[in-house]
Amino acid sequence: MKILVAKRAGFCFGVKRAIDIAFKLGDDTQKGIYTLGPLIHNPQVVKKLMMHGVAPVEDPRTADIKTLIIRTHGIPPKIHEEISKIGYRIVDATCPFVKKAQRYAQTLKEEGYQVVIVGDRSHPEVQALVGFGGDDVIVINSNEPIPRLKSKVGIIVQTTQPFEALEKVVQSVITYTKELRTYNTICNSTASRLNETKELAKKVNAMIVVGGKNSSNTAQLAKLSQKTCAKVYHIETADELEDKWFRGIEKIGITGGASTPQWLIDEVVEKIKAISCRR
Amino acid sequence: MKILVAKRAGFCFGVKRAIDIAFKLGDDTQKGIYTLGPLIHNPQVVKKLMMHGVAPVEDPRTADIKTLIIRTHGIPPKIHEEISKIGYRIVDATCPFVKKAQRYAQTLKEEGYQVVIVGDRSHPEVQALVGFGGDDVIVINSNEPIPRLKSKVGIIVQTTQPFEALEKVVQSVITYTKELRTYNTICNSTASRLNETKELAKKVNAMIVVGGKNSSNTAQLAKLSQKTCAKVYHIETADELEDKWFRGIEKIGITGGASTPQWLIDEVVEKIKAISCRR
Repeated sequence: MKILVAKRAGFCFGVKRAIDIAFKLGDDTQKGIYTLGPLIHNPQVVKKLMMHGVAPVEDPRTADIKTLIIRTHGIPPKIHEEISKIGYRIVDATCPFVKKAQRYAQTLKEEGYQVVIVGDRSHPEVQALVGFGGDDVIVINSNEPIPRLKSKVGIIVQTTQPFEALEKVVQSVITYTKELRTYNTICNSTASRLNETKELAKKVNAMIVVGGKNSSNTAQLAKLSQKTCAKVYHIETADELEDKWFRGIEKIGITGGASTPQWLIDEVVEKIKAISCRR
Repeated sequence: MKILVAKRAGFCFGVKRAIDIAFKLGDDTQKGIYTLGPLIHNPQVVKKLMMHGVAPVEDPRTADIKTLIIRTHGIPPKIHEEISKIGYRIVDATCPFVKKAQRYAQTLKEEGYQVVIVGDRSHPEVQALVGFGGDDVIVINSNEPIPRLKSKVGIIVQTTQPFEALEKVVQSVITYTKELRTYNTICNSTASRLNETKELAKKVNAMIVVGGKNSSNTAQLAKLSQKTCAKVYHIETADELEDKWFRGIEKIGITGGASTPQWLIDEVVEKIKAISCRR
């Protein structure tokens, strides 16, 4: 069985940066280091971080916080303001590309545009972006109908959305509005990872997509793979692999999300090699 | 034979305004009143204006000009500057909606956007808009491939283009650029005239489109009609009508461009009625 691993699988720049910040703080043997919500959408990495003294916390008013790390997805300005008043040290690990999208949302709001965010409204990145977008901000999932909009509309996109989602919304919005400003805030890493996965999925008989079940961009990779590949498995760790998945398979493709660490991908590759040898 | 006349056929706001300005100046019995190029794209109206003492001139340095009227399509800022120095009276009859598009082009240029104009580069409105768009301005016809663009692009549209042209260009440009600002400068009158003509052409066996052969928006009406109606005739005056066109026709549709005067449409209707009676 031939195993093809996507070159762009694994940590993107923003995730790597956040992980480095968190591990460094954890290893400094300080106490009371927390991340506001899980740092990234990968349970295995979050668990590892906890072993290094960095735990996720949901309530920022928790008494024993000394240092609070803001996760890759960012937070709304109101929450930033609130936690700033509490007085502990805040370390901002928001992805720089997400920060850029936040600045665009703010600019659009300040210049009188109704801000439209293309993305998933339950995703923390989008929830933070909403906070920058003003009172009339709306979130549009590319499958939903476009609601009534103002005549000046500004569009930004969740950094991990596929380009087709932006394209679809722009195409609809342009029919309703006189002035449209669009910032393609999809990060290059997402775009190239999606493209590579798309090509890989065409070439293989089955795809293994490694990454958090709660990871939006990993889920996108699985969804995209399903378009051209009949067998697609979204797993978090090598433990989930099943022998029967590989019966009759000649070529297998492996990819991973922006929040998937290399060691999880390596473990998957090793286990598949072992399965392959047993055949 | 049933004759259906489009309600929105004939002069739009901008053309009516320019015509009123020109006739008023002509009737004031002054001498030396000229329009820089034909005031509108309708030879019959231009002829009528000449009979009222308002003639088109191509060279603004012509010695006997006392008053120069700028036509509906506008002129580039450089030419405005040049003719201002000559010293005669300048009356600006540029359509207010075209002026709005010119202002958007200038704003986009000043804010560092590469200006893309969707339209016909040989049309005087577009040639004037180009003058407002900066050194890297480009004109795109919706059937052409998109050339290499900068990362910040601003799109405006010739006021008489069909919406589909803008839609197509936006869809292509968004794949190449990170920041896209779009002003839908298509005038409402154009949009509703095209929509009405589209519906009318579906209902009839033949369409008569009345207007200047050099009129871009009239040509658009003819082109659009051809999509759903087998017999489409673009004429300037009733003299061009031929009896044989109406053989076996039950329903005939009539529409006219933004620069087509009501009297030309009325003459066409009367002549078709006469043909119908003779059958």
